[in-house]
Amino acid sequence: MYYVNPNIKNLYRTSYKESRKNFIRLDMNENPEGLPSHFFEEVMRDITPEYVAMYPEMTKLVGKLADYLECEVSNICLTNGSDDAIRLLFEVFGEPGKKIVSASPSFEMYSVYMKMHGMVHSPVTFNEKFEVRVENIINNIDHDTSIVVLLNPNSPIGKSWLEHEVRSIIDKAKENNAVVVIDEAYYYFSPSTFIRLMSEYDNVMVFRTFSKMLSIAGCRIGYIISNENIINEIKKASSTYPVNCFAIRFAEKILEKPKIIDDLIVKERQGREYLLSQLEKHNYKYHYNQGNYVLIKTNQTPQQIFAKLKEKNILIKTYNTPILSNWIRVTTGSLKIMSLFWENFKEIDF
Amino acid sequence: MYYVNPNIKNLYRTSYKESRKNFIRLDMNENPEGLPSHFFEEVMRDITPEYVAMYPEMTKLVGKLADYLECEVSNICLTNGSDDAIRLLFEVFGEPGKKIVSASPSFEMYSVYMKMHGMVHSPVTFNEKFEVRVENIINNIDHDTSIVVLLNPNSPIGKSWLEHEVRSIIDKAKENNAVVVIDEAYYYFSPSTFIRLMSEYDNVMVFRTFSKMLSIAGCRIGYIISNENIINEIKKASSTYPVNCFAIRFAEKILEKPKIIDDLIVKERQGREYLLSQLEKHNYKYHYNQGNYVLIKTNQTPQQIFAKLKEKNILIKTYNTPILSNWIRVTTGSLKIMSLFWENFKEIDF
Repeated sequence: MYYVNPNIKNLYRTSYKESRKNFIRLDMNENPEGLPSHFFEEVMRDITPEYVAMYPEMTKLVGKLADYLECEVSNICLTNGSDDAIRLLFEVFGEPGKKIVSASPSFEMYSVYMKMHGMVHSPVTFNEKFEVRVENIINNIDHDTSIVVLLNPNSPIGKSWLEHEVRSIIDKAKENNAVVVIDEAYYYFSPSTFIRLMSEYDNVMVFRTFSKMLSIAGCRIGYIISNENIINEIKKASSTYPVNCFAIRFAEKILEKPKIIDDLIVKERQGREYLLSQLEKHNYKYHYNQGNYVLIKTNQTPQQIFAKLKEKNILIKTYNTPILSNWIRVTTGSLKIMSLFWENFKEIDF
Repeated sequence: MYYVNPNIKNLYRTSYKESRKNFIRLDMNENPEGLPSHFFEEVMRDITPEYVAMYPEMTKLVGKLADYLECEVSNICLTNGSDDAIRLLFEVFGEPGKKIVSASPSFEMYSVYMKMHGMVHSPVTFNEKFEVRVENIINNIDHDTSIVVLLNPNSPIGKSWLEHEVRSIIDKAKENNAVVVIDEAYYYFSPSTFIRLMSEYDNVMVFRTFSKMLSIAGCRIGYIISNENIINEIKKASSTYPVNCFAIRFAEKILEKPKIIDDLIVKERQGREYLLSQLEKHNYKYHYNQGNYVLIKTNQTPQQIFAKLKEKNILIKTYNTPILSNWIRVTTGSLKIMSLFWENFKEIDF
């Protein structure tokens, strides 16, 4: 026999083997359609075999990002998607035996990496009305806490945090030597950001990704923004080449053409507003608060809706968590995609 | 203040900020030219915005790899380049305080991740004649050892291991509950592989990459081959989407067209044979033993050669390690690239 890290030995990981390729994917908050094809082709055209044969270089992109975010290059660490950011968080700041405080339910990869690093979860749960008490989060942070995570907006239950709430949480974390992550994966769908807090406090990180609004989940690219000290520690734990050359080139080009981002924002908003208006009109109970996902209480069970939509080539998300077990979550996309969803949904659930 | 993992706090990482883009890159063993353009364009043509917007799917590629390697899909874990494989090795099988045994000098990322996981190195060094004693490796493996690493062929000092040597090392590791990694990054340049040993022993892993002969270092893709038990533990520590959709598509297409691999092999061999014949002809002392890299003892100092070649737009590798401080390492490529190198080198060092 040989030694296996006991945290990993005892870890259970789910894996989905079934391909999502030929479906309308409204289950994982990607853009179901992707970047506009004229822009996509423009980016692809310039990529050469030589460029792809070379180890990727991140410096130019980091410079562009710093300009875009109005910060220094020393405030940024690129990651292989947000997954990699979460892993780095725990590798650098995770203290075995200590606890992580977050609202729950939340993005499940935090929980996976938490277990992998021998930490325990101190969740503050949403109630049936999808409310969570900020005081409970603050009260849960104590000297045993080393990491606090806020998704802004939260997912799967949409909630954006108010600035005074976030500041109180950061203050309490600071008193207890804990770092605070504000995961802004759904920035662009939501006007609120706490990116500037990273320079005001010494214990704050913001995570962003190109997978959601920016429509390149397949590329795997995200980034961490924080003060130089934190970024330096994170970079020491990072791979030498965490991000591939395609992700780098697409990200560079997206930042060069902010109109692409504006167009994506408008397109998703049109589709989302259509969906919300249909839900209103037909008296559906739904929950939307920022992000590109809507929770809908359906007439049939979520499992029935899931199965019937799948037959019609549409994927949506269902939950085992008791608080969400009567809801489906639908990713929002363009008007075209939302109309398609609605036509099919109507046939099933009316 | 906040807690920082002490192994990371105390780690020193180098970073290269200078772009290698406009150089002939003979310093890091990539293919300086890349994949043939007709094949490259064929792969690129089929990639759509929708494919890139979706979280990547590895199942199809893993199936193709299993066929190609004549093993089961359960024997394979894809990684974000070999870097990711090394990280997973230490995360799963690294025991803080225990030691890693390897020949030295070797690939430096093993040493970085070793420190990150609180382990110590027990190196077996090459002598001035570039020989290393296998008995010393075997003797270094004891009850404090948890990981043994063999690069086959070794880099930067080329050496391929004999089967009986590898078996003795594995046996000794097994007696001490250590796992053995055989890193075959330079497979294809070298006829020897120990891939089948992974099914014969319960403690053996083989690492492979698409970055060297297969010419897509920018894509970041490699894989671990081992028995199902080891692969299952590794997968538990892996990211959900470690490998991006471009890497997956390129790898699939390369495996579908083995002729591409054959052509790459021939092309590199022609260039390498040319370089070695020139070195012979001009009485250069050199060391070559598998791989796509040649150590050359130059008339001028390595630093002089480096600087002068850089002026001529060519990058090569020099070393601080005493045993290599009088040598340069040159990556081998096509006849075109090697002729270009030789013309420039001649002007400098004759």
